[in-house]
Amino acid sequence: HHHHHGSAATQNRHRPCRTLNFFFHDILYDGRNSDNATSAIVAAPAWGNRTVLAGRKHFGDVVIFDDPITLDGDLRSAPVGRAQGMYLYDRKEVFTAWLGFSFVFESGSITFSGSDPLMDRRRDISVIGGTGDFFMARGVATLMTDAIEGDVYFRLRVDVKLYECW
Amino acid sequence: HHHHHGSAATQNRHRPCRTLNFFFHDILYDGRNSDNATSAIVAAPAWGNRTVLAGRKHFGDVVIFDDPITLDGDLRSAPVGRAQGMYLYDRKEVFTAWLGFSFVFESGSITFSGSDPLMDRRRDISVIGGTGDFFMARGVATLMTDAIEGDVYFRLRVDVKLYECW
Amino acid sequence: HHHHHGSAATQNRHRPCRTLNFFFHDILYDGRNSDNATSAIVAAPAWGNRTVLAGRKHFGDVVIFDDPITLDGDLRSAPVGRAQGMYLYDRKEVFTAWLGFSFVFESGSITFSGSDPLMDRRRDISVIGGTGDFFMARGVATLMTDAIEGDVYFRLRVDVKLYECW
Repeated sequence: HHHHHGSAATQNRHRPCRTLNFFFHDILYDGRNSDNATSAIVAAPAWGNRTVLAGRKHFGDVVIFDDPITLDGDLRSAPVGRAQGMYLYDRKEVFTAWLGFSFVFESGSITFSGSDPLMDRRRDISVIGGTGDFFMARGVATLMTDAIEGDVYFRLRVDVKLYECW
Repeated sequence: HHHHHGSAATQNRHRPCRTLNFFFHDILYDGRNSDNATSAIVAAPAWGNRTVLAGRKHFGDVVIFDDPITLDGDLRSAPVGRAQGMYLYDRKEVFTAWLGFSFVFESGSITFSGSDPLMDRRRDISVIGGTGDFFMARGVATLMTDAIEGDVYFRLRVDVKLYECW
Repeated sequence: HHHHHGSAATQNRHRPCRTLNFFFHDILYDGRNSDNATSAIVAAPAWGNRTVLAGRKHFGDVVIFDDPITLDGDLRSAPVGRAQGMYLYDRKEVFTAWLGFSFVFESGSITFSGSDPLMDRRRDISVIGGTGDFFMARGVATLMTDAIEGDVYFRLRVDVKLYECW
């Protein structure tokens, strides 16, 4: 039996059905910046703690975040949404993270998951679902580190490419 | 080249191919209820601990759960499955969570992920996969808080709508 | 309106479009093996700690891992990739886990999520996305525990079956 898509848009691996480009900004809690911080270490390995990122490439640190999303790379720009969820550092030899988070907008949300080898200039993670304007979305997002300031601030550029649009 | 679905059912954004309605019940460990508790705080920000939900809207608390699923809203009804996984609070200003969990039944499982702005009456998260009877499922689940009793008990109603059925 | 897949391969629930078979090896940090360990407890319930798995079937323990992937069951075989992410124990009565992790290869990644009732000989979790060679992958992975040595070492066999290939 063959059944076809009802309302799912054309799917083509060479041409996304929708692209979105954002920046988000992460300010990590360091014990002194509780008002400004947008993220916090909530779990750490036995050799770590919750105000300083752990040795061994932060292996084992889990960070929860609620980061502003902006259309350009300026932290002071008006946020258009929030990036919410967690990242965890999962390698001892090279800075590497694993992500589970959502972009939350007034009109809907997009959920992401996957490995982030963050020393690479460009790295892809999966778009695993969406709601509202992004109902049933699937795709790939390319992450690029746009700025780092010590252990407290980083800015990511995220190019979202949806290949399943409903 | 055009290739079509083999055994995937019709997909239509206006009509789910399958709907399921459940309730699940969360009893949080508070230091005294270890036999009855179905969930526990396992990580918290530096200003929190593991027996009391943290200040600032519980930001940074991570909770692991194994909650009974029932067909009606009665905690004493016979469970038809278990809701298992984690939720984490990820906003300082408004109660907001991020979810990664599965409904586990004898006949298969459904996995969910996404942001849960839990002060909204209805909020959608993504169904990102399934096994067994729910093989390859995708869809959206609408969460509704059906009851809250202090910090220790809440009950969620979950209306699952699958839009990809195999 | 009917729109069809552009470049997605045939989908058939009875025949995967791609199969992959791997083993991965987890060596848990126990306070003494920090050089060899590939994983660490980073969060635990109030009754647990980060060097010994907790009582009550490890309920509430969260483990972060970066485990070598091999083609056979020998830990000393040359790794072909890394299994990276987290598992968490989420049931008090029976050993049960919930997984969020990726297989990371030179050529791309596959992301997995779902419940793992690890006392069962075979259990299925969902493949929720992929990048690179596994662009937009979806499917099911069957986990089998191939070896356990106390609380410190286990080896999983993973049979990945993709049902959506692009």
